Amino acid sequence: MRICFFACLLGVVIVSAVSCSQRDQDVPVVINVSDFGLVPEKDGVPALRKLLDYVEANPVDKVIFPKGTYHFHADYADEFYMTVSNNTNGLKRVAFPLMGFENLEIDGQGAEFIFHGMIVPFAIENAKGITLKHFSIDFDRPFYGQAEVVAVDPSAKTFDIRIDGEWSYEIHDQNLWVNTIGGLVNIGKNLWFDPNTRSTVYNVNQYKLDPWNHWVDDNYEAYEVQPGIVRVTNRVSALPEVGWIWVFKGNGKARKVPAFRVFNSSDLAFEQINLHHSGAMGLIGEKSKNISLKRFNVGTKQGSGRMISTTADATHFVNCKGEITFEDCVFENMLDDATNVHGIYTKITRLRDHHTIGVNLIHHEQWGFHFAGSGDTLLISDNRTFKPVQALVVESVNFINEEHLEITFTDQLNEEVELDFGVENISWQANLTMKNCTVHQNRARSILISTRGKVLVEDNYFSSMMGAISIAGDMNYWFESGPVEEVVIRKNTFENHCSGGKGNHVIMVNPNIRERDQAGHYFHKNITIDSNVFKTFDRGILYAEYTDQISFTNNKILQTHTFEPLFPEYAVIKFESSRGIDVSGNQYHWDTKADIEADSTSFHDMKFEGNQGFEPRVKVVNTLSDYEIQ
Amino acid sequence: MRICFFACLLGVVIVSAVSCSQRDQDVPVVINVSDFGLVPEKDGVPALRKLLDYVEANPVDKVIFPKGTYHFHADYADEFYMTVSNNTNGLKRVAFPLMGFENLEIDGQGAEFIFHGMIVPFAIENAKGITLKHFSIDFDRPFYGQAEVVAVDPSAKTFDIRIDGEWSYEIHDQNLWVNTIGGLVNIGKNLWFDPNTRSTVYNVNQYKLDPWNHWVDDNYEAYEVQPGIVRVTNRVSALPEVGWIWVFKGNGKARKVPAFRVFNSSDLAFEQINLHHSGAMGLIGEKSKNISLKRFNVGTKQGSGRMISTTADATHFVNCKGEITFEDCVFENMLDDATNVHGIYTKITRLRDHHTIGVNLIHHEQWGFHFAGSGDTLLISDNRTFKPVQALVVESVNFINEEHLEITFTDQLNEEVELDFGVENISWQANLTMKNCTVHQNRARSILISTRGKVLVEDNYFSSMMGAISIAGDMNYWFESGPVEEVVIRKNTFENHCSGGKGNHVIMVNPNIRERDQAGHYFHKNITIDSNVFKTFDRGILYAEYTDQISFTNNKILQTHTFEPLFPEYAVIKFESSRGIDVSGNQYHWDTKADIEADSTSFHDMKFEGNQGFEPRVKVVNTLSDYEIQ
Repeated sequence: MRICFFACLLGVVIVSAVSCSQRDQDVPVVINVSDFGLVPEKDGVPALRKLLDYVEANPVDKVIFPKGTYHFHADYADEFYMTVSNNTNGLKRVAFPLMGFENLEIDGQGAEFIFHGMIVPFAIENAKGITLKHFSIDFDRPFYGQAEVVAVDPSAKTFDIRIDGEWSYEIHDQNLWVNTIGGLVNIGKNLWFDPNTRSTVYNVNQYKLDPWNHWVDDNYEAYEVQPGIVRVTNRVSALPEVGWIWVFKGNGKARKVPAFRVFNSSDLAFEQINLHHSGAMGLIGEKSKNISLKRFNVGTKQGSGRMISTTADATHFVNCKGEITFEDCVFENMLDDATNVHGIYTKITRLRDHHTIGVNLIHHEQWGFHFAGSGDTLLISDNRTFKPVQALVVESVNFINEEHLEITFTDQLNEEVELDFGVENISWQANLTMKNCTVHQNRARSILISTRGKVLVEDNYFSSMMGAISIAGDMNYWFESGPVEEVVIRKNTFENHCSGGKGNHVIMVNPNIRERDQAGHYFHKNITIDSNVFKTFDRGILYAEYTDQISFTNNKILQTHTFEPLFPEYAVIKFESSRGIDVSGNQYHWDTKADIEADSTSFHDMKFEGNQGFEPRVKVVNTLSDYEIQ
Repeated sequence: MRICFFACLLGVVIVSAVSCSQRDQDVPVVINVSDFGLVPEKDGVPALRKLLDYVEANPVDKVIFPKGTYHFHADYADEFYMTVSNNTNGLKRVAFPLMGFENLEIDGQGAEFIFHGMIVPFAIENAKGITLKHFSIDFDRPFYGQAEVVAVDPSAKTFDIRIDGEWSYEIHDQNLWVNTIGGLVNIGKNLWFDPNTRSTVYNVNQYKLDPWNHWVDDNYEAYEVQPGIVRVTNRVSALPEVGWIWVFKGNGKARKVPAFRVFNSSDLAFEQINLHHSGAMGLIGEKSKNISLKRFNVGTKQGSGRMISTTADATHFVNCKGEITFEDCVFENMLDDATNVHGIYTKITRLRDHHTIGVNLIHHEQWGFHFAGSGDTLLISDNRTFKPVQALVVESVNFINEEHLEITFTDQLNEEVELDFGVENISWQANLTMKNCTVHQNRARSILISTRGKVLVEDNYFSSMMGAISIAGDMNYWFESGPVEEVVIRKNTFENHCSGGKGNHVIMVNPNIRERDQAGHYFHKNITIDSNVFKTFDRGILYAEYTDQISFTNNKILQTHTFEPLFPEYAVIKFESSRGIDVSGNQYHWDTKADIEADSTSFHDMKFEGNQGFEPRVKVVNTLSDYEIQ
C-alpha cells in the first residue's frame, strides 16, 4: 500500500479507519481525524466518538488533526455523572472521553478547538501514558458576564455600563441578569478590571463591601437608559471609572465545565496547549500520578474582547502523587489561582469499632472525592492543634454516599483518636516543580502548596491580585491537607502582589490552626525562600507560623511606587510559633527600613545576619500579649 | 433448635442473623429486623444495610418488623444517581434499596417508619416478586410550607398569617421564605385550603392570577408584625379568609424525594400501606410489569397539622406493562393527581440512516428515561396530526446522553418519517384496573389515563379540584403518549369536581393535537362511560375529541348546589372530531336541561336515545365556523 510505504519512511504509519490495523511494534501507528469524518465544518462529536471507538479496538499510538478550527457541540456528546473535587459534581457531557486509554498521543498540530454549550473538552480517567499537545481550546460563548463602564455620575452615585458583543442582558426587579453559556447569571460575585493592565484595579475591594464573597442583590438597582446601556445605582463607598470592565459570574454554582478533568490516571503530558476559556477550572487532577505541563498556557484569546480565561483555578491537583511539573507556562486572567496542590482532610464522624472509623467529606465541593483505597496510609490529626495522632494502613473503604465513607484499618485505632479529628491520605502526596512560568492578571493568589512532596518553585514571574504563594492547611473550613515538608522557592520575581486591598503578605505560611498546642508542635517544615526578587509597592513580604526550619535568604526587595501602600503598618516579615528561622543576606531597597516581627518562640533561635536595609532589631511579640523590643 | 421447632408449627421459620441459614423449600424463611439491631430507638439505616446484605446472601422469604416506630436518617444511607421520570433526577439516598431482589416480602406488621432528611424510603430496581405490606411512611419535617390566615384587612388589602409548629420562616427583601426538609422555599407555587373540608377553597384560582403556575415574587410583600405573624400585601383580586391554610412549595424543583421508586421490576405488591408524606411522587413506576396496590393509602397523618400528603402525584406509571391494579385505596391531599398511567413520546431529532434515528427526550423531567430496548416495537407518528406513520422493531439503542439516544431498527424507515415526529414504545403499555378507591381533597385531577392497555375504572369515588379523569396524549408539551384503545369507566361517583376555577369538564378526552388531519384520523378509541353518578355544582360533564367509539350511557347526573356554577355557559357534553358516539339512557336532574354540543363530524352517526332531562336536540357546531341548531 503506497501510503503506508511512504509513511513508514517518515517513521510513522498512516492508517485509515477502514484499512490496515496490523501494527509493526517499532513504528508508531498514527490516525488522522479527517479519515473518520472529523472535519472543521461540522460538529466533530459524532465523528470523534467513532474515532475513539476505533482507538479502543485497535492499536493506535497517535491521533493527528490537520490544522484548522474544529467544533464540538454538547447536543450529542457522551455524558457521565462525575464527582469533580473543587468543582461542581454532576452529569457532564464530554467531547474527548479518554477513559481507559493507554499510551496515546493526540497532536492537534496547531488546531483550534471550539466548544459549544455545556461540554467538558477532555475527561481523562483510568488512563495511562496520555500526551495531549499543540492545540487551543475556546468556547463559543462566555461562562461569565462582562460590561464596560461608559459613564459615571458622582453626584447621583450611579454609573452606566455598556453590555454588548457576546453578552445580552435582562433586567428583573431592578436586578441585572446577563446571558452566559450556562444560562442567565446575576451580578453575584463580581470584580473590576482595568483594560490597560488587564488586571484587577488597585484596591478593588473598596468598590464593594466585599466584591467577591458577598451577594450584591441588595446593594444596587439597575435600569436600562437606552438599548445596551444600563444604569447602576451604586450604594458603596467608591464609584468605578469610565473604561473599567465589570466582570461577574453570579451567585450560582458556576464550576460545572472544567476544560480537563483528570482522575485515576498516570503519566500524562500536556504540551503547547492554549486554554482560552472554561466554565470551571482549567485542569483538575485527582488521585493521579505524574502529570507534566509544558507550555500549557491559560489566557484569553487575543482580540476576543474577553477579560476572563478560566472562571476558577487554571490548574488544581488533589491527592495526586509522583511528579507534577510546570515548565514555560503562562497563566493569566483567571478568576482564581494558577495552581493549588493539596490533599483533603476528612473528618471523623463515627468511631465504629477498634479498626473502623466513619469519616465525612465536609466541604461540599469535595463530596464524592475518592479519598482512599486499600493499602493507603492515612494520618489522623487533632483538628484543633493539627498534631498527628496516629498513622494507619487502610484495609478497606466502604463508600456509603458522597459525604460519608467507612474506613477499616489493618491495625487498631489509638485511644487518643476522637470524633472531629482530621484524616489525610499521606500515600497520595505529589512532588511539585514549577519553572519559568508566569502567573499574572488573575484574581486571588499565584499558587497554593499543601503537599508533603518535594517542592521546587524556580525562575517564575508572579504578579497576582492577592499574595503569590500560600502554604496553608486547614481542618476547619476548606479541609485542604496538609503540611509541607520540603519547599524551595528561589530565583523568582514577585511584582506588585496584594493590590486587591484584602491584606496578605506576598508569601503566606498560615495553617488554619485553632488552638495553639502547648506541647510545641510545628506544622510545616523546611521552607527555603532564597535569591528571589520582590518588586513591591506594599510592606508585607513574608508571614509564617507553625513552621519548623524556614529560611528567607539572599532575597532582593525593591520598591515600585506603582501604587500607594495599602497596609503600611504591616511588618515586612512576621513569624509566629515557628523555630529554626534564618533571615540572612537579604537586601531591602525601600524608602523605609524593613522590620521583622516575631513571637518569642520564633525568635528563640532565629538567625538574622547580613541583611541590608533592615531594622537592626527584631520586634519580639509575646504569643499571647504585648510587644517587646529587643 | 427450640425456636425453629415452635415456629415451624406456625408454618414459618424464624432465623436469626447468626444462626441457621439452611432452608426447607416448603417453609418460608422469615427474619426479624430486631435480630439485626434494627430497633425503634436509633437510626435504622446501618442495621437495615446489614440486614439487606444478609438477605442478598441467604435464602430469605420474609422480613418482619415488630410493631413500633422506626427511624431512618439520610446521613449514612446508600446513595445512587437516579433518573426518575416525572420527578427530579439526581443523587438520592435510599433507606430500603431493594435492588436485584427476588421473591421477598417485607411485612411491617403495623410499624411506623419515620424518615429524616432527604432520603427516599424505598427504591425497587431490577427486582421481581416483591411484597411490601402493613406499615406507614412519614417524614419528620414537611417538604412544603404552610401557614394559617389569622387576620384580613380588606381596606389595606393585606392579610396576616401565622407560621408556627413545624414551620419557621425568614423574610428577605420583603419575600417570605419557609424552612422545609429540603431547605428554604419561597412562596412560588401556592394554593389555599379550607381546613373544614381539607380541600382547596372554591374558585381558588381567583386568589392569584394563577396560583399554581406563576411565580408570585412580584405580587406581594411580606413583613413580620410580631414573632410568628407575617403580614402579606395582596395585590390580586380577592383576599383569603381567616382560618384558611396557605400551602406553598416554592419555585424550585421540589420533586427530589419520592416515597417509592420502582424501575425495571415485576410482580410487585403494595398492601395496607399508609403513605403520609413525600417530597415528590408517592410511587413512581417506570418500565415495570405487574404492580398491584391494595389498601395503599395516601394522606396526611391524623393530628399532624399538615394539609399536604405527597407534594406531587400519589402514584404514576410510565411505560409499564402487564397489570396495574388499584383496589380499596384512598388518595387525599396530594398536590397532584392520584395516578397517571402513560408512555413517553420522544421526538426525532436526527435521521441517521435508513435504519437509524436519533431521538430526544424533550420534557426535562423525562431526561434519562430508559425509553426503549432491543426487541421493543416503536410507533412513529406525525407530531402535528398524531397520525401513525410506521411501526418498527428495535434492533439496538445507544443511550448517548440523558437527552439524546440513537435507535436502530431491524427494518428500513419509511420515506414518510420526518424530523420532529413523535416515537412511542407500544411494547410497554399496561392494563389498568382501579376499583373501590377514593380520590379527593387534592389539587389537580383524580386520574390520567394514556395507555393502550385495557382500562377498567369501577366503583370509585372521585372529588378533585380539577376534573376527575383526563385522557390526553401529547407530542408537543408534556410528551406523554399515547392513545387509549379500551377504557371502561363505570359505577363510579364523581362529586363537585372542577371547583378550582380553571374550567374543564369532569371527564376530558383531549389529545393535544395541533393540526386537524383532513384524512379523518381519530386518536383515542373505545371509551365507555356507563352507569356512573355525577354529583355536580357546575355544567361540564364530558368533553371528548378525536375519539372513535365513545359511549356515555346510563349515567345519573345530580345537581349539588354546594357552590355557584363557575362555567354555566359550558355544554354539559361536548364532542369534536369524533365518531361512533352513543349518548343514551342518561338521567339529568338539574334545574336546567342538559345540552350536548357536537361538530358535524361527531354528530354524523351519533346515537342519542332515552335520555331524561336533556335538551331534545344536539347543538351542532361546524368544526371551523359557526353554531347551527338541529
